[in-house]
Amino acid sequence: MQAEIISIGEEILSGQTINTNASFISEKLTEISIPTRWIQTVGDKKKEILEALKIAKKRSDVVLITGGLGPTHDDITKQVATEFFKSKLVEDEIVLKNVKARFKKRKITMPKINEEQALVPHNCLVIDNVSGTAPGMMFEQKKQIFIFMPGVPFEMQDMMTKAIVPFLQEKNKGMIIKNLIINTIGIAESVIYEKLDMAKLKDVEVAFLPGLGGVKIKLTVKEKKEVVLDQKLAKAQTYILSKIKDYVYGYGDLSLEERVAQILLAQNLTISVAESCTGGLIAHKITNVAGSSAYFKGGVVAYNNELKNTILKISQSLLKKHGAVSELVVKAMAENVAKITSADIGLAISGIAGPGGGTADNPVGFAYIGLYYKNKTTVKKYIFNNDRLGNKKRFAVAALGMVREKLCL
Amino acid sequence: MQAEIISIGEEILSGQTINTNASFISEKLTEISIPTRWIQTVGDKKKEILEALKIAKKRSDVVLITGGLGPTHDDITKQVATEFFKSKLVEDEIVLKNVKARFKKRKITMPKINEEQALVPHNCLVIDNVSGTAPGMMFEQKKQIFIFMPGVPFEMQDMMTKAIVPFLQEKNKGMIIKNLIINTIGIAESVIYEKLDMAKLKDVEVAFLPGLGGVKIKLTVKEKKEVVLDQKLAKAQTYILSKIKDYVYGYGDLSLEERVAQILLAQNLTISVAESCTGGLIAHKITNVAGSSAYFKGGVVAYNNELKNTILKISQSLLKKHGAVSELVVKAMAENVAKITSADIGLAISGIAGPGGGTADNPVGFAYIGLYYKNKTTVKKYIFNNDRLGNKKRFAVAALGMVREKLCL
Repeated sequence: MQAEIISIGEEILSGQTINTNASFISEKLTEISIPTRWIQTVGDKKKEILEALKIAKKRSDVVLITGGLGPTHDDITKQVATEFFKSKLVEDEIVLKNVKARFKKRKITMPKINEEQALVPHNCLVIDNVSGTAPGMMFEQKKQIFIFMPGVPFEMQDMMTKAIVPFLQEKNKGMIIKNLIINTIGIAESVIYEKLDMAKLKDVEVAFLPGLGGVKIKLTVKEKKEVVLDQKLAKAQTYILSKIKDYVYGYGDLSLEERVAQILLAQNLTISVAESCTGGLIAHKITNVAGSSAYFKGGVVAYNNELKNTILKISQSLLKKHGAVSELVVKAMAENVAKITSADIGLAISGIAGPGGGTADNPVGFAYIGLYYKNKTTVKKYIFNNDRLGNKKRFAVAALGMVREKLCL
Repeated sequence: MQAEIISIGEEILSGQTINTNASFISEKLTEISIPTRWIQTVGDKKKEILEALKIAKKRSDVVLITGGLGPTHDDITKQVATEFFKSKLVEDEIVLKNVKARFKKRKITMPKINEEQALVPHNCLVIDNVSGTAPGMMFEQKKQIFIFMPGVPFEMQDMMTKAIVPFLQEKNKGMIIKNLIINTIGIAESVIYEKLDMAKLKDVEVAFLPGLGGVKIKLTVKEKKEVVLDQKLAKAQTYILSKIKDYVYGYGDLSLEERVAQILLAQNLTISVAESCTGGLIAHKITNVAGSSAYFKGGVVAYNNELKNTILKISQSLLKKHGAVSELVVKAMAENVAKITSADIGLAISGIAGPGGGTADNPVGFAYIGLYYKNKTTVKKYIFNNDRLGNKKRFAVAALGMVREKLCL
């Protein structure tokens, strides 16, 4: 069984609204092993909606449509569905009762226009909307299923989880799909690819998803028997780990800062940060993890040399002799921030985020990152090629990656 | 001229990645008066990509395709384009040079596989990728334009803004669509709606876009004559300002931190921040603005009381008596961070981001924000209803909003 999603709405086409409905639906379908193969987005125009339905009818087993079911003039999906499925609109008493009850509960007089919501195509199955007034509609024809849902996210989500997912799960017997996402840090997509012999991974579908936070490797397997599926995934995972183990920091949704949190908590260590070019982003990332106060002492954003001297106690002579972006200054920043805040680990960075400030020796995208731990300080050089915000993000990820590397490899 | 977007990627179909690329592209196209009428999302499968291209060829003037241009096996868009446009792949010396230069700059040995990125269809125009290795490709056939871009968001965004938008703007003459986005802070969507008489705005299309950074009001006008269009926009803008002027901090892409930058630079003032619950996010936001070193002295992320005492010099007795989340502590944080860093303005925050740590008096989402300026300190209370990251973002925006309010209203 293969699915297709049709998202209806001018606000999506204009870029004003991001299509989170489609990703919600496809995620739910993936969970019940129904792959989404197509997503179409069209406007609130009869011709376009009809064309999208015709295209979907030719190729998909189940078609999920959202949007355009509201009571106002710009919502035309119900009329178009009525035409497409050669129906006529009839009043549904239960829907009318529900709509009236919703307004009564909120002590609002029901605008006349809402009565129209109780008009539904005679040949569809009505799906109850527990969170709003527009009902869902399902058309089943020759083993093909068309399901219309409202575009309001929480109404659609309720309908999806409570009614449609259980229904489709029942319909879809047989194949199981599972994913495994392997999160890496500090290795380029093409380097991973070179290290892996794809022939050894022929049992799984492999996708590389690069981003500023590292490359994710997504493995997908489709099988009839769960035990076979799990074996294939485990075999592929073992092979990948045998080749790039040191770069893998975790799986699935786990972020690098969450991994660092696990490591620090497990080893009962505290950390402080001294940031220059990242301007607070490393501290922000660390504190995005709930409970970070257990291991994060705090940070100093020493954006100019004055603060490097007054708060971080970097001597003026060292700053003058080597410059703020230098191995020795970053080393001192890492050591001093740990000392000043009584933290076990001091993490420090100084570099050039850009777009200005680059020199031949210290170009834009260049940074030193220093890590103090157990009376030893490691300083590494990094160079990235992004814009200001992109460089800040890469720097922060590299810094957190250094903590993981130091404590965990 | 009507546009169509084809997003290629299994990660979008599975719901793992939200299709923000499509909304970015359509937003940029809307800005240059090119409406997007269709968005298709397909997987990294030859048959599906070919079908999507065929469908688009029948109905759209310009087709923008993203994804599947990387160097690994799962990226097949280039091969499919080569087949679709009856091309053959030839080596492009400039691309090869660029790819090699990127690796050289980062001092990484280039994996052999990257050489393939320099192979491009002989009948396309190559679009330079300034942020990555996969070049873009443009095919122009019988007044139809097909543009292929990488799926990595920042690479696509760079290509879009630097090369493709100017190119398409030149191509697209006729009806003019213009937007005006009015950025507000500190006022809820429903309150704006109540204050405005929509009948007075009938000449423009009005959309309210609420977000964690405030509500944006988007005005859209479509006209043949630019002068009529500009008049309608100006009239609507004047009316809106007459009703909610104090909440409007700027227009278009201008971020609140950029507005704060303008204000500080114009008044020749410096600022420092002392953060607790925002964990570095205020400093991160301030330093996202290029050139922020001119007015930003630095910050202290005093995540625990120890640092509030040792670095920010808040007395233990004050902390003990009132607690870290208190008006008096935040007042002292703002004053002391300004003093310690010799800044004109001290901005401080202490609160509860959640999910844990809330009490009856200081619930999750609650914060005090303090602003020291010219020997006076203002402290305000804020309460928000989001998750941890959402609360951090709201807090940071509120803090920057206080700076704007203090210096500019």
